[in-house]
Amino acid sequence: MSLETIRRVRDLRERVALWRREGLRVGLVPTMGALHAGHLSLVEKALSLSDRVVATIFVNPRQFGPAEDLAAYPRREADDAALLDAAGAHLLFAPPVDEVYPEGFATTVTVTGVSEGLCGAVRPGHFAGVATVVTKLLLQSLPDVAVFGEKDWQQLQVIRRLVRDLDIPVTVEGAPTLREPDGLAMSSRNAYLGPEDRARAPRLYAILSQVASDLAAGADVATRTAWAVAELEKAGFGPVDYVEARDAETLAPVGERVTRPARLLAAARLGRARLIDNVGIAL
Amino acid sequence: MSLETIRRVRDLRERVALWRREGLRVGLVPTMGALHAGHLSLVEKALSLSDRVVATIFVNPRQFGPAEDLAAYPRREADDAALLDAAGAHLLFAPPVDEVYPEGFATTVTVTGVSEGLCGAVRPGHFAGVATVVTKLLLQSLPDVAVFGEKDWQQLQVIRRLVRDLDIPVTVEGAPTLREPDGLAMSSRNAYLGPEDRARAPRLYAILSQVASDLAAGADVATRTAWAVAELEKAGFGPVDYVEARDAETLAPVGERVTRPARLLAAARLGRARLIDNVGIAL
Repeated sequence: MSLETIRRVRDLRERVALWRREGLRVGLVPTMGALHAGHLSLVEKALSLSDRVVATIFVNPRQFGPAEDLAAYPRREADDAALLDAAGAHLLFAPPVDEVYPEGFATTVTVTGVSEGLCGAVRPGHFAGVATVVTKLLLQSLPDVAVFGEKDWQQLQVIRRLVRDLDIPVTVEGAPTLREPDGLAMSSRNAYLGPEDRARAPRLYAILSQVASDLAAGADVATRTAWAVAELEKAGFGPVDYVEARDAETLAPVGERVTRPARLLAAARLGRARLIDNVGIAL
Repeated sequence: MSLETIRRVRDLRERVALWRREGLRVGLVPTMGALHAGHLSLVEKALSLSDRVVATIFVNPRQFGPAEDLAAYPRREADDAALLDAAGAHLLFAPPVDEVYPEGFATTVTVTGVSEGLCGAVRPGHFAGVATVVTKLLLQSLPDVAVFGEKDWQQLQVIRRLVRDLDIPVTVEGAPTLREPDGLAMSSRNAYLGPEDRARAPRLYAILSQVASDLAAGADVATRTAWAVAELEKAGFGPVDYVEARDAETLAPVGERVTRPARLLAAARLGRARLIDNVGIAL
């Protein structure tokens, strides 16, 4: 395997500086590891937009709540490195926790608006953890472009907002959600699903797709999202954290009916997993 | 005058990119304008550390509390530009408020620890405003070095902390406080002092210097700082926000006696002005 793994910010900077001196464009793909084809599609997109791609693997403790799955989150760096190598990534940055948060660390980046409601309401502190670590990852390597998955739609909007607001000189690109053949959005957390729940899981996407199409046709938002929650509960999901139609960029609530392009977003627990998904509402 | 003033981040980036292509080192001196010799000494220090110096003038609304002097803060950009030109600065970046905080702006950088207590206790939100705008100013131009005055000692520690924590690739340099012949620390806010208060003002530095020297000699911290507060009140200051001995870098409270290098910091109102100052406690 030719992919080199580095652990220290100074080594990352050194590598990137060398590339820059050669006039190469640099792409970044931040991940928490436990890679699947969705992540590899981000690498592919980064490769199409830059000359050298750095993937990062860091399970960021600051974006997990105290009752969440930080300890259980799947970690398999050797497998991940092999996948990244095969996908054509040029460097893996996988820092230990104390390289990212050394003793005395005291700074937080928070984003209001887009980070409120939806997952922000259910996971207090989550998006501050995301915003802080993404700011750091971007400033550690200062890539030309950074690629994030649309599966974490709210996260993507939080990142777009903070990059614009803090004047971070990077282009943020979203990449479409990859799905299993039955429609389930690919996610490292799908590994938590037992066989029965795995069989139920595709209902999330099916219900969202149907409601999005109804809303695009002018259906009442409150009625259809309430129907979606009930359907998910019938299908064995629970609790359902939310099913909501929002402005695609600002995530402001839409009115009674969708009158401009919007996004339908949902989060629901299924067995040991908490699944999230979202689809466009195209008018 | 050869000094050019620019208002837009994209123009700033363009100028700095040109310099970088020539292999030149860039220094940044962020200010709120109303410049005095203290500011010009920051320019001088930046010139000694880099090839091109950008000074910024931006009266940052986010670091003023609702009852503070944002509207009254002195603004005299033409005079400032002439001073910067004479001091050898190469570029003035003086953005309008909506260039720094466009509509929809939603991001805040906060620093715990060093920003708590002292001015942080008296001016809620002040250091979040400082941390956010300094992060932006640094990322707008990505200088090699940025110079800040030691007169705002707590601010300097907040900036050092956030630069380290967010991995901003810049060297932060502090520059010693410049003083009037009678010892008063130079400050744009000294302009608020009427003649009587101006005559009283040097007591702040005199008292701090005496207490710092007592503490360095082993005096009891609580006794001597209480004495300083009483002396300031006797001299016509009031209210005295604080006189405190702190660890010079972490700003953690020192114990009963100072046992390692520390800083003595004070803030007190005098007439229409709120004055701050600080001195080293050298063991």
